Amino acid sequence: MERHTRRQSVWALTLLLAIPLQALAAEPLPSWNDGPVKQSIIDFVTRATTEGHPGYIPSEERIATFDNDGTLWQEQPVVQGAFLLEQVKARVREDASLAKRQPFKAVLEGDVALLSSMDEPQLMELFAATHGGKTQDEFAQEARAFFQSARHPKLGVPYTQLAYAPMLELLQYLRANGFQTWISSGGGTDFMRVVSEDTYGIPPQQVIGSDLKEKFDEGHGHPVLRREARVDHINDKAGKPVGIEQHIGRRPVFAAGNVRSGGDIQMLQYTKEQPRPGFALLIHHDDAGREFAYEEKNDASLKAAREGGWTVVSMRQDWKRVFPQEGR
Amino acid sequence: MERHTRRQSVWALTLLLAIPLQALAAEPLPSWNDGPVKQSIIDFVTRATTEGHPGYIPSEERIATFDNDGTLWQEQPVVQGAFLLEQVKARVREDASLAKRQPFKAVLEGDVALLSSMDEPQLMELFAATHGGKTQDEFAQEARAFFQSARHPKLGVPYTQLAYAPMLELLQYLRANGFQTWISSGGGTDFMRVVSEDTYGIPPQQVIGSDLKEKFDEGHGHPVLRREARVDHINDKAGKPVGIEQHIGRRPVFAAGNVRSGGDIQMLQYTKEQPRPGFALLIHHDDAGREFAYEEKNDASLKAAREGGWTVVSMRQDWKRVFPQEGR
Repeated sequence: MERHTRRQSVWALTLLLAIPLQALAAEPLPSWNDGPVKQSIIDFVTRATTEGHPGYIPSEERIATFDNDGTLWQEQPVVQGAFLLEQVKARVREDASLAKRQPFKAVLEGDVALLSSMDEPQLMELFAATHGGKTQDEFAQEARAFFQSARHPKLGVPYTQLAYAPMLELLQYLRANGFQTWISSGGGTDFMRVVSEDTYGIPPQQVIGSDLKEKFDEGHGHPVLRREARVDHINDKAGKPVGIEQHIGRRPVFAAGNVRSGGDIQMLQYTKEQPRPGFALLIHHDDAGREFAYEEKNDASLKAAREGGWTVVSMRQDWKRVFPQEGR
Repeated sequence: MERHTRRQSVWALTLLLAIPLQALAAEPLPSWNDGPVKQSIIDFVTRATTEGHPGYIPSEERIATFDNDGTLWQEQPVVQGAFLLEQVKARVREDASLAKRQPFKAVLEGDVALLSSMDEPQLMELFAATHGGKTQDEFAQEARAFFQSARHPKLGVPYTQLAYAPMLELLQYLRANGFQTWISSGGGTDFMRVVSEDTYGIPPQQVIGSDLKEKFDEGHGHPVLRREARVDHINDKAGKPVGIEQHIGRRPVFAAGNVRSGGDIQMLQYTKEQPRPGFALLIHHDDAGREFAYEEKNDASLKAAREGGWTVVSMRQDWKRVFPQEGR
């Protein structure tokens, strides 16, 4: 089963491996334009790894957490929304009467755009309705099949090819400097785990997301875990620092999020505001030409960034390329 | 703060380091007596690491989970029970009226033995009552102070010195063979995290335990996490596979637990009964001379071990020494 995902995402690994390590050491972050943003990242990492420097961080405390949707890969549409739409259609093919029942009806009448406009709690409720009772293995198989067949509606490529090249380099650069890289996202933990290792080099045990409750089922001597139709944890907004504490037990020293829903504000505050100043990176999607341009209703994330001294990334100005396939 | 624990537990690291790696490679598990139990562990690890063998396990799937109380260290009394007794006494010194209120009254009238006889859910309820509202940092400081000052009532040494030498060697042996070692215990996650790295070489992010709910508190620009007086997850019995899935997202291939409360049965079944047969280790405390001898009320763990083909450790027969300070 693992092999399918691996074959599919082999391009991503190839791209990562295509950058020789020496080249990265000589010139880190090649897909980032030179400027204050790139420089502030390099300065932080240099201080963190220089013994004797006041900004030195012992290796066991080098924890970096990344939001996923809109931070590591594109979120127009939210990938899990597209998956959910496929799942609902499949359920309706099995049982036509479902098309008249909520939440199936609303999803079928809308489209992936409607799903993308839903916030994470609403999405999780839909997941509970469509996935309750399935085993974890069954769910993972369905998610893998989706990543195999689905294509981005506008860009026409598999979703795993729409990770951001500059962020893949940043993950690699941090790891090369002794940081442990984690995902902390509002998306479903087990949905992301299916692709996190091949797409980002982040193993399943370093993925923190939203969860349904699960139940141990003895299964007549072949025990399995079943998903329940109840939300256990929403890893969004104030839930992000909580998820991080539960899974890691250490405060991150580096965190990255993006402008759209305000979902990363608390994680970035929690990372930045501590006795040892951490590094908070906020990505602003202002690149309608190469990706998408969108703002946040109340501008809360950019306001918090100004007040907290976070580093704001302009995709248009700070990124030399957005997606790996643009070439270098 | 980290430094205190480190100094206190320096003996443990010294002991681990005192065993040269070459010697371990030549003769692994020196504190285990030769016999079928030791041999079955070595055979499993040899198969798991031999490419081309049907029992070969890719390194990313080499996940090993260990119960803590009674499996990695002694549990007479349960260490967290002794901590809780100290906490209750401290609270009563601050406010004498508490001595008449439950659950404080029951704890004060009993002693550490009463706490040891409580099951994990009862202990977690007491923790909720005594620790609600505290920040995670305040809790960690109190736990560290306890490990500094407390001594085992019978053996007279700090609790961290009562980890089992054969199990420290087993952790080290598995890690040397590419296994990732995790704790999955009914005890409090954040209580164990204070000592897991120095005592077992297991970092906080690889500790799974029972949790209170936590809440993000903006703290006027200095955000903290506060413990709530509500249990979030009880990592015992059927809760263990659930905790493992939430934190790791992979089924372990090796798990260890012990006879006392039946709390490890489901974790061991979940590990042993899978397409690829995993390894299940169950420790039987039958050594009144060097440690303690006790059974389980209904004998469920030993019965499950016989039915499931688990490897049962007799501490008396299979361990050359129990605690590191017995010498080698």
